[in-house]
Amino acid sequence: MSLNVPASTADYLSRSACEIEEALLTALPIKWQIPEQLREAMMYSLQAGGKRLRPILVLAAAEAVKNSRSARDSAMPVACAIEMIHTYSLIHDDLPAMDNDDYRRGKLTNHKVYGEAMAILAGDGLLTHAFYAVTQTVKQGVPPQVALDIVSDLAKLAGASGMVGGQAADILGEQGVTSLEQLEYIHLHKTSDLIMFSVTAGARVGEASNDQLLALQEFAIKLGLAFQIQDDILDLIGDEVKLGKPVQSDVQQQKVTYPFLIGLKESQALVERLTAEAKQALMKAHLAKPEKLYAIADYLMNRDH
Amino acid sequence: MSLNVPASTADYLSRSACEIEEALLTALPIKWQIPEQLREAMMYSLQAGGKRLRPILVLAAAEAVKNSRSARDSAMPVACAIEMIHTYSLIHDDLPAMDNDDYRRGKLTNHKVYGEAMAILAGDGLLTHAFYAVTQTVKQGVPPQVALDIVSDLAKLAGASGMVGGQAADILGEQGVTSLEQLEYIHLHKTSDLIMFSVTAGARVGEASNDQLLALQEFAIKLGLAFQIQDDILDLIGDEVKLGKPVQSDVQQQKVTYPFLIGLKESQALVERLTAEAKQALMKAHLAKPEKLYAIADYLMNRDH
Repeated sequence: MSLNVPASTADYLSRSACEIEEALLTALPIKWQIPEQLREAMMYSLQAGGKRLRPILVLAAAEAVKNSRSARDSAMPVACAIEMIHTYSLIHDDLPAMDNDDYRRGKLTNHKVYGEAMAILAGDGLLTHAFYAVTQTVKQGVPPQVALDIVSDLAKLAGASGMVGGQAADILGEQGVTSLEQLEYIHLHKTSDLIMFSVTAGARVGEASNDQLLALQEFAIKLGLAFQIQDDILDLIGDEVKLGKPVQSDVQQQKVTYPFLIGLKESQALVERLTAEAKQALMKAHLAKPEKLYAIADYLMNRDH
Repeated sequence: MSLNVPASTADYLSRSACEIEEALLTALPIKWQIPEQLREAMMYSLQAGGKRLRPILVLAAAEAVKNSRSARDSAMPVACAIEMIHTYSLIHDDLPAMDNDDYRRGKLTNHKVYGEAMAILAGDGLLTHAFYAVTQTVKQGVPPQVALDIVSDLAKLAGASGMVGGQAADILGEQGVTSLEQLEYIHLHKTSDLIMFSVTAGARVGEASNDQLLALQEFAIKLGLAFQIQDDILDLIGDEVKLGKPVQSDVQQQKVTYPFLIGLKESQALVERLTAEAKQALMKAHLAKPEKLYAIADYLMNRDH
């Protein structure tokens, strides 16, 4: 955690990440008959750390709408689901046929440990299991229609019209010139859509009104774009030790990024503007307890890793 | 269709396959923004033909429980969903890291046409979209809790404890000796689980009682195993032209199969016995209109492709 994050925010984030990691440990029921190596491959990447930003947003959105511990508990299966989706996407992205990465967060990538075939299956298994996790919310009192809306959102925002579509556009973009419009499509779907899902799903569990949902979705879309541009910036000028990965990989891979297209200074200004707009959207949502969502927006803008 | 299939069964199967293929054409909404090549890759494999056995079983089970056209219509989104799952599994199975197949049903495999990266994403997209399709049943009057039960079944039976687990066990099995017990695990999960899902989901849409569900699940498990053993038999003694693929590939790949483990004659006897047991289970279900399910069981036992 960097020094410019308030202690209370740092504490909230790390406490939430711990709770999520504990829940992930039993997300794949122990009693289910799963080939040992497949289970191990799935858990290897699920436990590989990271900021756990998406699941934290699920919990924070649920709490923000309905200021109660029970809203947070009810949202936990969805928090696990989105982390499974994020994790599967990293496993598949790292494959030799995609980005061909040997390391992620300082650990060997899934296929380097378990082989390509098992990595593909571990990804498929996590993707599929995410939907099972969502169905478990009804055991926590979430109405079936709400759980079903979350299933539908997840399929749209993680699928061909969402994250998978963004990844496809990214791959196709590497084969030619990328315009700012194409870059926005890639960022919107490759990154923002899962953030949009996280905030929306948490809000649904918290029984948000339609107006609250709309305002929170505006918050999510600004936050997601700011997050991705900050990623581009950190790749250019970040600290390798803090990031845990080599910088300037985008430049080396000749990737089109925001700093490449509009310049570093303008990119930094854009992150600030988007974050301010995200916070304005939050005000419109009239939330019971919005503090953590404000804090997360500030944290993401100021993060150095 | 082979000559020993009654005309009415042949007609039912081909008519159902046509209806399913028509529904699949619009299963991925036209208005959704999806990168053109990704959409094309997904539709390429979805439209590559095949028996459409699993979706036909969904429709037939729904009709069998509740003898009405509306049950069949309500089940159609689930029929599309299971075909998407089956199709994604074939795309991923054909990848170089898995079975490395260039052709399937006489057509180039997905990655041979669109490249490995796009094939992985097309599979991920179909897998994800299957869950969206299931949520669409509520628009056809299926209660949300029933739709959610179908989501849960699909995630279990297609995931790490189901089909993906079977595929993983198959890959791990290639690395050593396979016992009859291991072979049963592989067949049960790699093949039978999706058949189990199809029958169960159709029955749920038809509002089956718990007793009916249990009897139909017994039917499905016998049918699935018979189906897989018949596949093994056809690979050994089938007609390449009718099968549309080379025979004896299992022998060449030194795959452990039922004929290999228990002999050809005993395998054939086992298919007959399992089919008879499947039909006995059907009787116990006291269905409104079970004829098509009986006919499908007979058809699968006698098929030559």
